[in-house]
Amino acid sequence: MRNSRRGEVDPFIVMDVMEAARQAEADGRHIIHMEVGQPSTAAPAAARDALSAAMQSDALGYTVALGLPELRARIAKLYGEWYNVDLNPARVVVTPGSSGGFLLAFSALFDQGDRVALGAPGYPSYRQILRALSLESVEIPTSAENRLQLVPEDLQGVDYEGLMVASPANPSGTMLGKPELAALIETCQARGAAFLSDEIYHGIEYDKKAVTALEISDDVCVINSFSKYFSMTGWRVGWLVLPEQNLRQVERLAQNMFICSPHASQVAALAALECKDELDANLQVYAKNRTLMMAGLPKAGFAKIAPPDGAFYVYADVSDLTDDSRAFSAEILDKAGVAVTPGLDFDPERGAGTLRFSYARSTADIEEGLDRLQRFMREKGHIA
Amino acid sequence: MRNSRRGEVDPFIVMDVMEAARQAEADGRHIIHMEVGQPSTAAPAAARDALSAAMQSDALGYTVALGLPELRARIAKLYGEWYNVDLNPARVVVTPGSSGGFLLAFSALFDQGDRVALGAPGYPSYRQILRALSLESVEIPTSAENRLQLVPEDLQGVDYEGLMVASPANPSGTMLGKPELAALIETCQARGAAFLSDEIYHGIEYDKKAVTALEISDDVCVINSFSKYFSMTGWRVGWLVLPEQNLRQVERLAQNMFICSPHASQVAALAALECKDELDANLQVYAKNRTLMMAGLPKAGFAKIAPPDGAFYVYADVSDLTDDSRAFSAEILDKAGVAVTPGLDFDPERGAGTLRFSYARSTADIEEGLDRLQRFMREKGHIA
Repeated sequence: MRNSRRGEVDPFIVMDVMEAARQAEADGRHIIHMEVGQPSTAAPAAARDALSAAMQSDALGYTVALGLPELRARIAKLYGEWYNVDLNPARVVVTPGSSGGFLLAFSALFDQGDRVALGAPGYPSYRQILRALSLESVEIPTSAENRLQLVPEDLQGVDYEGLMVASPANPSGTMLGKPELAALIETCQARGAAFLSDEIYHGIEYDKKAVTALEISDDVCVINSFSKYFSMTGWRVGWLVLPEQNLRQVERLAQNMFICSPHASQVAALAALECKDELDANLQVYAKNRTLMMAGLPKAGFAKIAPPDGAFYVYADVSDLTDDSRAFSAEILDKAGVAVTPGLDFDPERGAGTLRFSYARSTADIEEGLDRLQRFMREKGHIA
Repeated sequence: MRNSRRGEVDPFIVMDVMEAARQAEADGRHIIHMEVGQPSTAAPAAARDALSAAMQSDALGYTVALGLPELRARIAKLYGEWYNVDLNPARVVVTPGSSGGFLLAFSALFDQGDRVALGAPGYPSYRQILRALSLESVEIPTSAENRLQLVPEDLQGVDYEGLMVASPANPSGTMLGKPELAALIETCQARGAAFLSDEIYHGIEYDKKAVTALEISDDVCVINSFSKYFSMTGWRVGWLVLPEQNLRQVERLAQNMFICSPHASQVAALAALECKDELDANLQVYAKNRTLMMAGLPKAGFAKIAPPDGAFYVYADVSDLTDDSRAFSAEILDKAGVAVTPGLDFDPERGAGTLRFSYARSTADIEEGLDRLQRFMREKGHIA
């Protein structure tokens, strides 16, 4: 049967790494997983209990398209708790993960051929979803001086109908401060473009709190999810916050594109919002892992890293070690038994000289992984 | 913020009916719900038990994009059980409901501006999702003589890159026999267009088994779901069956658009496939309700109906009673206390003269609803 041209999206290179790691494990090797982009923890216990109880008392049929009203209200309350922002629950739209949020927001805001500006490196699915929707991504290289985040000067001379930023970012973990975020929002709004803020890693931050775009403007689209801080990747539940004038259109699209987000996941998510203790314990593990990574990676010869403010990734410039990050990561897997992600997924241009290290797994795994990396790099002669 | 033009989809009129019914109930009235498109039953008990157990032993993180391998294999086996079709599990793609299946299939098969032919009346989200993806729906009126299904003659002179049929259909419940389905597939394939078969109501059939397009050709896209026969609407899990040459593109799109279908729902769905006894008991209720509807609706003056072969709907031509089905359904709700769906959602042209009655609820509700409809129609003077 026919294939579309819009569907010719790039493969995920990390999938090849994961398959190679799986194969190595099937062959009896022990592999440390620094390639994965998800917590190893389950949804909070109280979230799972809430669902077990609901399954006995409720048929869990369709919810209304915008999500369970009590979940929308509780998410709105989170903005008070986290940012001291007073948010109208009517502006919160529950989505099937942030993936569903992207599909919904892009469809509601942009017409075929519209251009959405993105910083590179960045989450690869932005550009692939844009392509699948007959939209154009305009990828703008960010610089190490700006900690791999866009600044208004980068946008000079660029034509776009939308601008998407992420803070904390994937793959770098760097954040935008309030003045930096405000400057980008202002630049974007000045040309009448839609500003989208991917805040999926909010809650996983270390030295300072992440800033939400809603602290700066109501005329933005915020995308978030229960996947990361709330440790619910596989549940596919997230949310959008939108200006009131966009809600009617978004609701109709959500009715047709999704009918609703998974009801069971919404029940679990509502309970997860009350699980601060368990989730902060997860966070303490990431914080400890991060400290180990910040010390251990340079010691292993991976010194060109932007210190991550949040998320659970470190993005390293390895261009002095290789011009083929794919081959290099294959070698690291083979020789060191550590799976890492080549940067090409995040930056097709410059990613041949970068790697992403994830520290979402257990502290014991991180310690062992760093030891292995150090040994590998010593054997390669890159460190003494 | 800006709104897109592609996002200007029509509202669901049934939502107004549901809101009016909710309001009437809030005012203390008792309403019989013949407007809903979902079972009132929960997921099978063993499906819920399987999830409760999995939540204790598994983090339920992301699955691979195409779905749990054991679920894909078990779905393939269903084709042997239901149709005696030998299906390669690699051709099965688990999706976030049939909604996700439409998004994925349309993106993988069609480019902006491509035309997809649909019979009217039909499921309204087909045309809305197509619009949101910058595709064109070509709606072709079906005739009562053909039991509201397309026939090849209807397609003469029509330009299209894709053709979607549904059997059993929503809103009519009518099915295509094997020769009729084969004739449509042949007509479609002869022009190189993609054939899509919405089989979401398979399993809910009465006098004879529904025919899958896979009995006729491998070069088709089948869309199905756990929502209806398996009684799992809110779980958002369904599947596609595709030709092998489309899988690579579909996998990449699924990775980016969804990451995966809800893991918890996949676990429950796998167990639901072994719950034939409980599901067939649900089916017996629909069968009893259908018998009551086929006798009771004509007695109440709704005689112009295509006898439904499957699903849990009856679509009635009421054009001799009204030229405004929306006002008529509002009157039925107000005077009779029965919520029914005006046909305009399914057929914007001719739906002003049609109503859809659902019989998915309990038999007691159906009996009471039919009594109320009869009383209402008698008071209106439409029956003696």
